[in-house]
Amino acid sequence: MSDRLTIALDVMGGDRAPDIVLKGANIARERFPQTQFLLFGIEPQINRLLDRLPRLRKVATVHHTDDVVSNDAKPSVALRTNRRSSMALAIGAVAEGQAAAVVSAGNTGALMAMAKLALRTLPGIDRPAIASFFPTIKGESVMLDLGANVECGADNLVQFAIMGDVFARTVLGRVNPTIGLLNIGAEDLKGHEELREAAQALRASQLAPQFRGFIEGNDIAAGTVDVVVTDGFTGNIAVKTAEGMARLLTSFLRESFSHSTLARLGYVFARPAIAKFRSRVDPRRYNGAIFLGLNGIAVKSHGSTDALGFANAIGVAVDMSVHGFIAKIKAELGAFHIDLQAKPEAAVG
Amino acid sequence: MSDRLTIALDVMGGDRAPDIVLKGANIARERFPQTQFLLFGIEPQINRLLDRLPRLRKVATVHHTDDVVSNDAKPSVALRTNRRSSMALAIGAVAEGQAAAVVSAGNTGALMAMAKLALRTLPGIDRPAIASFFPTIKGESVMLDLGANVECGADNLVQFAIMGDVFARTVLGRVNPTIGLLNIGAEDLKGHEELREAAQALRASQLAPQFRGFIEGNDIAAGTVDVVVTDGFTGNIAVKTAEGMARLLTSFLRESFSHSTLARLGYVFARPAIAKFRSRVDPRRYNGAIFLGLNGIAVKSHGSTDALGFANAIGVAVDMSVHGFIAKIKAELGAFHIDLQAKPEAAVG
Repeated sequence: MSDRLTIALDVMGGDRAPDIVLKGANIARERFPQTQFLLFGIEPQINRLLDRLPRLRKVATVHHTDDVVSNDAKPSVALRTNRRSSMALAIGAVAEGQAAAVVSAGNTGALMAMAKLALRTLPGIDRPAIASFFPTIKGESVMLDLGANVECGADNLVQFAIMGDVFARTVLGRVNPTIGLLNIGAEDLKGHEELREAAQALRASQLAPQFRGFIEGNDIAAGTVDVVVTDGFTGNIAVKTAEGMARLLTSFLRESFSHSTLARLGYVFARPAIAKFRSRVDPRRYNGAIFLGLNGIAVKSHGSTDALGFANAIGVAVDMSVHGFIAKIKAELGAFHIDLQAKPEAAVG
Repeated sequence: MSDRLTIALDVMGGDRAPDIVLKGANIARERFPQTQFLLFGIEPQINRLLDRLPRLRKVATVHHTDDVVSNDAKPSVALRTNRRSSMALAIGAVAEGQAAAVVSAGNTGALMAMAKLALRTLPGIDRPAIASFFPTIKGESVMLDLGANVECGADNLVQFAIMGDVFARTVLGRVNPTIGLLNIGAEDLKGHEELREAAQALRASQLAPQFRGFIEGNDIAAGTVDVVVTDGFTGNIAVKTAEGMARLLTSFLRESFSHSTLARLGYVFARPAIAKFRSRVDPRRYNGAIFLGLNGIAVKSHGSTDALGFANAIGVAVDMSVHGFIAKIKAELGAFHIDLQAKPEAAVG
């Protein structure tokens, strides 16, 4: 099994664990035949499920632990008291080089705190960010931060831009990804002070040719830029507002097709088109938020997703591993560090 | 014409003014036969359009001015240099009691600055807010602030809650509107400090029975609360992100129905249902942002809307006037003022 890609799974994380985690891994195993799994969790429960998933069992190694991080645990408390939890051990497997990436659907704050401690942040990065794909009219973009950092200074935003740039290059395959700062107007005088400072720093950096300045909320889904940079408070609200809208519009569409007999008849003929539409707006399709800025790959699945959604989160981890994301971001940060230091003079000149 | 409701229109404001303003007024005239209009703008242009709208001409009075606020004018500059603009004169008509409300599709910042100066803020309100309707699974909610105040303290947020409460009572007809503070988690420890302070103040206020605590981005479209309270930066990004998603999903739906001959055939049968869907997500339906906290009714139409959208913005102004919004909010603020002052002791006790 030496040519294989090893993914560590926190089998106990998420609202419907361990069931959907193992079923998700089984779907991912079919899609990515080169993967094998390290499964961390309560062994009897895992074994009972693996009895029905014999092919997954062949490419899985179970590591027993009774300790599970609860969903409402404070990150600082989880750090101290859940050192032998399925989450901590799965992250540890990445830190010790036994796995290429870790995937968990558990407590986001605890996962970030444990990942920061075990994997450490990359040189040049003060704070890791949570990133995710976003569907757009042009295809897909990446948005960060989605909630790791409520308060962000200009330096944090610049670092998010660098991380988003590498991510869009390696995982989305963009050659020169365009970058925008989320604000409430395209004019330079609008928004918070740190946004104006970050814009100035980006214009003086090597990312300047890719930087499109400020973008607005409607630009996210329009695909105006490949990388949407924002603080964790705003990003979290934007992405959840978008999720809510997708659910609302899907519900409006369902109601439109059920309000009369004629409309229900129309549905029969329109079913293939509607199925295509639904699959495009399916939130499971975009499941798998990435912790960027760590010296290791950690992917967070939505806590309430199902097996298909969890398989997609594993897919994100596989993609990042296969594309050598960590090596690439290290190289980029190494080259960038100098420019960030030179920023004040560049801004003055 | 004494029993009539008079609405002042900034005929020159907006990307497609004066055309869509007058056509919008003509649609509004049909819907609300009790209205008459004061039209502020370039008289020859207005008269040329009125020649084709004889019924509107009968209920309209034209006030000529050559001066127009440009779309990119800084609010402070517009305040000083555009005192005789169509926008300033239309607001002036409300300040002087000649009109019940003003509607403009022009420069938002200038409109807010001029309206604050001419109409003044209500006693008990430090800063006016921009509010709008939002479609939800349960019907409609109101959200504020959508961009008037980038930085908001806890006191501003509490005042927005009071204004949103009166608005939901008078215009949406809710008996005891529920209120939520937009945050990145329902737990009390999350988000900015001012959000926690505002939550504490609302729990100690007479709005406590209606206050549902923190809500998240997905709660907006879910209709979890009737009144969504947030700062102007976050609100602006949330509402524009939602607009972008509506446009994205409508485009996905169109693509689904055009990707094969069979799908196009399905569209023929599904057309009535899709038309119903499109009308529900039509942004023109929700056009008309309200400036709350002023001693007078001012409604801002989207700058790029069409005649139907502008008519809807006039509809919002008519609704607020007919329901006696200003008198009701004054009464509510008068009763509330005492509680806000008593807040510190209530929080200690």
